[in-house]
Amino acid sequence: MILALAGGVGGARMAAGLNRVLGKDLTVVVNTGDDFEHLGLSISPDLDTVMYSLAGINNPLTGWGIAGETWEFMGMLERLGGETWFRLGDRDLAVHLERTRRLAAGESLSAVTAALCARLGIRGSVAPMSDQPVRTMVKSDLGELPFQDYFVRLQCEPVLRGLRFDGAPRARISPPFAAGLADAALAGVVICPSNPYLSIQPIREVPGVETSLRARRVPAIAVSPIVGGRAIKGPAAKIMRELGREPSALEIARYYLGLINGLVIDDADASLAPAIAGLGMQVLATRTIMDSTADAVALAHHCLAFLQQLRR
Amino acid sequence: MILALAGGVGGARMAAGLNRVLGKDLTVVVNTGDDFEHLGLSISPDLDTVMYSLAGINNPLTGWGIAGETWEFMGMLERLGGETWFRLGDRDLAVHLERTRRLAAGESLSAVTAALCARLGIRGSVAPMSDQPVRTMVKSDLGELPFQDYFVRLQCEPVLRGLRFDGAPRARISPPFAAGLADAALAGVVICPSNPYLSIQPIREVPGVETSLRARRVPAIAVSPIVGGRAIKGPAAKIMRELGREPSALEIARYYLGLINGLVIDDADASLAPAIAGLGMQVLATRTIMDSTADAVALAHHCLAFLQQLRR
Repeated sequence: MILALAGGVGGARMAAGLNRVLGKDLTVVVNTGDDFEHLGLSISPDLDTVMYSLAGINNPLTGWGIAGETWEFMGMLERLGGETWFRLGDRDLAVHLERTRRLAAGESLSAVTAALCARLGIRGSVAPMSDQPVRTMVKSDLGELPFQDYFVRLQCEPVLRGLRFDGAPRARISPPFAAGLADAALAGVVICPSNPYLSIQPIREVPGVETSLRARRVPAIAVSPIVGGRAIKGPAAKIMRELGREPSALEIARYYLGLINGLVIDDADASLAPAIAGLGMQVLATRTIMDSTADAVALAHHCLAFLQQLRR
Repeated sequence: MILALAGGVGGARMAAGLNRVLGKDLTVVVNTGDDFEHLGLSISPDLDTVMYSLAGINNPLTGWGIAGETWEFMGMLERLGGETWFRLGDRDLAVHLERTRRLAAGESLSAVTAALCARLGIRGSVAPMSDQPVRTMVKSDLGELPFQDYFVRLQCEPVLRGLRFDGAPRARISPPFAAGLADAALAGVVICPSNPYLSIQPIREVPGVETSLRARRVPAIAVSPIVGGRAIKGPAAKIMRELGREPSALEIARYYLGLINGLVIDDADASLAPAIAGLGMQVLATRTIMDSTADAVALAHHCLAFLQQLRR
């Protein structure tokens, strides 16, 4: 049993690779700090990206959404003068409506997610970090912004000064996440190459997560989302600079210090290996860029072998 | 200024004909007894049918929905195990979401309807009969059923024993309907060829409507939805039989007795004209079947001329 933590596109790609290799022996715990209510719908962008990726229906070009998606709803909404800054495809919309309906009927986000994944034929578990709402708020030069306003509407343009995770103190670890942590068969933890501040920090903020991860009896590794000083996708590098940190795999190692036994970095960053090792963790340099499912599967194999090595 | 009362498909067709002739000098008051909440959405089927018809984007084959509609949302919802008995097209869905969002934000159904109609380029007013919810309940051999369960899910198969209009005693005439009734320029009332029991009765049940219509100073006419003992579309004839009434234009005349000065019947029913006239109303026999926009416009012209004649 492997527990993976993931956020958006990069994390979802790697989670799909792990899922190809591990099948039902994988639980992917997903950030829900990006979740929001929009047009009356409960939208969980990271859960959807992971779910679509594991189901193999994700759009590989955009990284988010469903392959072959259509936009008739959006076109009509625009004609009616509705809000169109957050793009909702016709099929994607079915997920949001069904989730919203089931949550309103009293089901937990964990239960709804499990049901949707089963319907999409996913083996392995996908779980929200918590069933209670946690909402990432971005402190910026434009004031405090709800996450999707910052991320989608304003395209990450405001300067980020800090983050606040609204609701986190009252959140509880979701039942599938707790079950994964307590599983006697748990063999390791993989933190996927997601944005540490936006995707992994919200998970760490759920009370009990940090303690549980630090007290684990199995090795944990992370895959650096920074390659050659740049983020493969998304604003991770920009955010690191705005927070006064150098965008580098070394800084990623510092972020995860105490939480992981090993860091996977890209071949391009091999020269940083001694410095990272100097922090007190193992380093694996390999190809981390995933341009295809084959890349994601290869990275999954490398990570699982690395975990195996760390168990010895 | 002409005030028209309408329900579903037949009523919407005629309303579109009147709108072609009258433009902004028309207010169409629409039944909202069919409205319901489904998948968390506020759906107003008759308002939408009238709106789409007046905007010229209606599907002329089905009578409901939007021409050229796509069904990607519905296909995905089916895959996810959601409820699919009420068909929601991708574009149609934009109307339901936008209406639901605006109602939740505190706008009245009248205001939302006016805004949507403006966006769709409709001249003339379309208004709900009331801004308060009225819900048609069908007393049947299967017990009391919410209207859409009876009408769509069960395809009108249960035997109808009676109707109840939940919420009607607390409903108020909508502001645009009240304005139309009070308009000094009001020249006549046209009751479109809609199902009297399912589409017109809910309007009559709104407190004040019956009194206002009976106290009017202008002529009112109705167009019979029954032609040659059959309904052009929908369950009107079946319902009349189940209520122990003969499906005929004469029975339609009896239903509207006291409320109208003249009844428009189809040429096919011309032999009933003397009996209808014997009830104390004028009769116009003409072609009432609308197979095209030209038919609807022709019927509108005949009705307006009939009203003119009754004003003398």
